[in-house]
Amino acid sequence: MKKISRRKFNQSFLKGVGIASVATTLPAACAAGIGATDGKKLGVALVGLGGYSAGQLAPALQDTNHCYLAGIVTGTPEKEKIWADKYNIPKENIYNYENFDTIVKNNSIDIVYVVLPNSMHADFCIRAARAGKHVICEKPMAMNVEECDAIIAACKKAKVKLGMGYRLQSEPYTQEVKRMVREKTFGDIRYITAEAGYFSASNPNQWRLNKALSGGGALVNMGVYAIQSAIYGTGENPVSVSAQEFSTRPEYFKETDESIAAQFEFPRGIVGNIFTSHNVNVNSMYVGASKGWFELRPANSYGPLSGRRSDGTEIKFSHESQQKLQMDDFAQHIKEGTVNRAPGEMGKRDMIIVEAIYRSIREGGKKIPLDLGRMGIV
Amino acid sequence: MKKISRRKFNQSFLKGVGIASVATTLPAACAAGIGATDGKKLGVALVGLGGYSAGQLAPALQDTNHCYLAGIVTGTPEKEKIWADKYNIPKENIYNYENFDTIVKNNSIDIVYVVLPNSMHADFCIRAARAGKHVICEKPMAMNVEECDAIIAACKKAKVKLGMGYRLQSEPYTQEVKRMVREKTFGDIRYITAEAGYFSASNPNQWRLNKALSGGGALVNMGVYAIQSAIYGTGENPVSVSAQEFSTRPEYFKETDESIAAQFEFPRGIVGNIFTSHNVNVNSMYVGASKGWFELRPANSYGPLSGRRSDGTEIKFSHESQQKLQMDDFAQHIKEGTVNRAPGEMGKRDMIIVEAIYRSIREGGKKIPLDLGRMGIV
Repeated sequence: MKKISRRKFNQSFLKGVGIASVATTLPAACAAGIGATDGKKLGVALVGLGGYSAGQLAPALQDTNHCYLAGIVTGTPEKEKIWADKYNIPKENIYNYENFDTIVKNNSIDIVYVVLPNSMHADFCIRAARAGKHVICEKPMAMNVEECDAIIAACKKAKVKLGMGYRLQSEPYTQEVKRMVREKTFGDIRYITAEAGYFSASNPNQWRLNKALSGGGALVNMGVYAIQSAIYGTGENPVSVSAQEFSTRPEYFKETDESIAAQFEFPRGIVGNIFTSHNVNVNSMYVGASKGWFELRPANSYGPLSGRRSDGTEIKFSHESQQKLQMDDFAQHIKEGTVNRAPGEMGKRDMIIVEAIYRSIREGGKKIPLDLGRMGIV
Repeated sequence: MKKISRRKFNQSFLKGVGIASVATTLPAACAAGIGATDGKKLGVALVGLGGYSAGQLAPALQDTNHCYLAGIVTGTPEKEKIWADKYNIPKENIYNYENFDTIVKNNSIDIVYVVLPNSMHADFCIRAARAGKHVICEKPMAMNVEECDAIIAACKKAKVKLGMGYRLQSEPYTQEVKRMVREKTFGDIRYITAEAGYFSASNPNQWRLNKALSGGGALVNMGVYAIQSAIYGTGENPVSVSAQEFSTRPEYFKETDESIAAQFEFPRGIVGNIFTSHNVNVNSMYVGASKGWFELRPANSYGPLSGRRSDGTEIKFSHESQQKLQMDDFAQHIKEGTVNRAPGEMGKRDMIIVEAIYRSIREGGKKIPLDLGRMGIV
């Protein structure tokens, strides 16, 4: 992922090539043909060829059963040939940020996966929807709730499917957590803690440190995993949150949060205690219930995950690429109408929580009420 | 433990038979002979024969090498014969709360261990000190910092040793944690989380629910373990704390806190995240460091404890009674001048933190600064 080109693009985006004005000259999507693939693999175009696309998504899309890597969209011209050669991508399926909207004419692309810096999510998700493509948006969904609404509205209008890149929603440990919660394997849940973070020091120029690109620090990058764990680990949305920010390297994290703790209250009194950080490797979730407990450690890495329960049972599944599972789940959702495991509303809900956490921090740790109902719970 | 007699005593104490006035007619302790036992086991008198004395301390004192159960002090007359028979305690070593101060004349009692409801700790610790006896005070040390100061001052004046009943300070898993922290086995510590709690529902009449007897709820009962873990798991005292209280059964926990989360900042930026509860069984500590992590789960039960490290090593020691280890440590401290693993200053420091946590809760989660230096760190 080439930093400068991204920043350059983003700056032009921030200067006014905004959501409302982008792609307005494009025709509304014709979604009729999409999904009617008669069992064929759906074509996926990755937008943004940074570390996650190169290291995780592209390899995973070589193993998927219901979709495949059909195209790329990159702001770095020198990546075009490298990717074309490596993944056998035809020239007509290669786009840059400027000509991206012409993807509307390309019938071999069914799904656009936006893997760009956070500030570019809304723009490209909306443009993809307007081009009639189903959309997967990497987390966090956008810079704020307003942008999430715009993405959701655009996909609704274009009658395309919208999914979040919440890979864990498709992998078996998380499914097992959801099963134990649903079936009350250990009785009533009373407490959940979740941690998601890593030590970040290698690259002071990384885009995540730039708030105009990232929208936030540890919370939007890793904290969303902890938020997700708190919700699928209880089966409920929180009704309030309080939060605190911690800083040890202000010279490095000039604009973005380094570490954040947040406390949730859930409807029936479950307490949630989450922590996220760009200063320490943490990766776990623990659920305390009336008849026992279970935990995953790690809980949100690319895997293999690992878990144990208070009855001595190990939680163990054979490992498959989470990205592969996620992509196939989304493709099947399109092709076969299976459940969308990570719909746009889930991303929006998490952004509402993110905004409440930042607000609590600004207000000195004050408890912020949340009125989410069952939003985003699948 | 007979509730009524305790409450009755406590009420009279609260009405004014207070610290300042108690035992003023007794002679100052003659501490000269104490400790000069020439290798003999020191005599311990337990004050308060509730569940912890009966279930843990008395049995442990049958196995100790440096001290033994020599006497009892009880407010429940019918317990006298039962204990005398069971533990072969001579009649002259049996006291009640009224004649307790005459223990000053009893040379077979070297140590008085106060295992009473929290509101009675200060009174009996001070009376024991004035009677020239070394003192162990069960946790939490007292009702407030002022009482802690009074206990410490009384012991200093009487030239007797003062220890806290922090059994974990004497057991090997905690020692191993302290060793790994000291030797930086996993590099610099960046994060610690500790949980201590249990589900309490069996007895709505228990004294812990009565704030006049307990001084607080989950925080003073179990939270002190989490506070302790946060400190020995980092080797530092926190410099600030914020906290939140959670309630699901206000009809049961009428006067005392049910669950509390608290966040610590440490001098070099380590973040601490603790949780304590009378609503859920939680029992763990986790230390995240620059080169790995380690955890104990359980971390603060009577044992056996269990631990693991990020390098795959299991943390394992043969189990011995924590109470036995604690009592022998304190007896050796008296007899041989070994280190006092849980001095009174440690109990006072923890009470300062407890008071700051309650203050933060009262002030809506505000961050409260702490100025502890190295107080209580052994």
